[in-house]
Amino acid sequence: MKYVRFAVTKEVMYGVLEGDTLTQLDGDFLQGTSAKLDTTFNLNEVKLLPPVVPGQMVAIGLNYALHAEESGMPIPDEPMMFMVSPTAIIGHEDKVTLPNLEHRIDYEAELAVVIGKEAKNVSRDEALSYVFGYTCNNDISDRHLQKKDGQFTRAKSFPTFKPLGPVIETELDPNQVDIKLSINGEVRQHSNTNDLIHKIEDLIVKVTEVMILNPGDVIITGTPSGVGPLKPGDHIEIEIEGIGRLKNQVID
Amino acid sequence: MKYVRFAVTKEVMYGVLEGDTLTQLDGDFLQGTSAKLDTTFNLNEVKLLPPVVPGQMVAIGLNYALHAEESGMPIPDEPMMFMVSPTAIIGHEDKVTLPNLEHRIDYEAELAVVIGKEAKNVSRDEALSYVFGYTCNNDISDRHLQKKDGQFTRAKSFPTFKPLGPVIETELDPNQVDIKLSINGEVRQHSNTNDLIHKIEDLIVKVTEVMILNPGDVIITGTPSGVGPLKPGDHIEIEIEGIGRLKNQVID
Repeated sequence: MKYVRFAVTKEVMYGVLEGDTLTQLDGDFLQGTSAKLDTTFNLNEVKLLPPVVPGQMVAIGLNYALHAEESGMPIPDEPMMFMVSPTAIIGHEDKVTLPNLEHRIDYEAELAVVIGKEAKNVSRDEALSYVFGYTCNNDISDRHLQKKDGQFTRAKSFPTFKPLGPVIETELDPNQVDIKLSINGEVRQHSNTNDLIHKIEDLIVKVTEVMILNPGDVIITGTPSGVGPLKPGDHIEIEIEGIGRLKNQVID
Repeated sequence: MKYVRFAVTKEVMYGVLEGDTLTQLDGDFLQGTSAKLDTTFNLNEVKLLPPVVPGQMVAIGLNYALHAEESGMPIPDEPMMFMVSPTAIIGHEDKVTLPNLEHRIDYEAELAVVIGKEAKNVSRDEALSYVFGYTCNNDISDRHLQKKDGQFTRAKSFPTFKPLGPVIETELDPNQVDIKLSINGEVRQHSNTNDLIHKIEDLIVKVTEVMILNPGDVIITGTPSGVGPLKPGDHIEIEIEGIGRLKNQVID
């Protein structure tokens, strides 16, 4: 099932998407059971919003071997985790702003895991049962600040640096999907999550060894090789098999 | 004014503390104006809770020169920022748990800034007007994981690793207060925030250059020299001039 948050005029609504038809739900799908209403919309009548507003956004670094290699970093024996500000999130078709044109600012296609219920010290066998679903993320990163700071939070937390969406797909094998990013129609990243060094289950185990995850919290799971800089006017498209396409343009 | 969150039986309440007398407020002091009710309690009748439940907790590293020196790190020309999980927060007199007794796990006394209104791209002159008040924090850190990960989030986000409280003081010159930590009655850290490399105003400017801060978000501002390991049974007391004493014991 494909879940969405959307707006019609200014009212925020929740829904499920089948084809181009959105059926409204009577409440937030992350806050327990939500039932279908009789109201439907065509996709082109609504503004899609980020499908979730997480309390916490946990990011995993260097989780595809080829990307670790292109970054000149050793492969971590445990997932390398840090946090970024959820205030950086934008939705499908929202514009990306580059705060400093003198810095190299890169795109990074990532599979995002949306947590469905409170999780702490989760076992590997049960890990996926704590997931509500999956969506696409772009982990946009200011390389100058990332290198300068050592800590990655600042480089990755500017407003618009975390496009998320368009939908949350609940039925997906997260370790077996194609992931692809293109700039102005040209493919720049193309991999499959079967290349993840630390699988989705392991990420949930390791993150919940440390912190409590709550419904709506998001783990972004690392980017494959092929990262590169953005420039004003660029059209970015991230496609993850089974989820859909997240499109954003960099402001001109 | 000293603001507190507290519980009587299981009900969470908000109040102001004058001497040993707690006067209940009609709502959360961080959600706009809250008025005093007629209900009062003696401090010993209630359980103090963490005075705020932040959405985001931003931490500043190496912000006292002597601590940067004892850590063998260069003094950063800009505040070094990262994020920790608010799920690590406990209150005054709650117990601290050490998840791995083979790792060195250190105390770190810090002044915590509680944001009062939405803040983005704040100017230095107006920075302090975005502050609701100040409280004491212990930024407990697993040194083994901090060194291993490079990123500081994991080392500092285990449950009970962020004692916070006991009160939020709204009338304070944050760049001019004594800060002291003792273990089992013996002073281990003693400095004054006039030794901060990056002043409170500058931290707010630099953090809000990046992310949006919302009411209740917390910035922990760095620790002075004298950090050292905790062991089971230790009584920790952090005292910040004008705020009060935050006491926690490490579980035996």
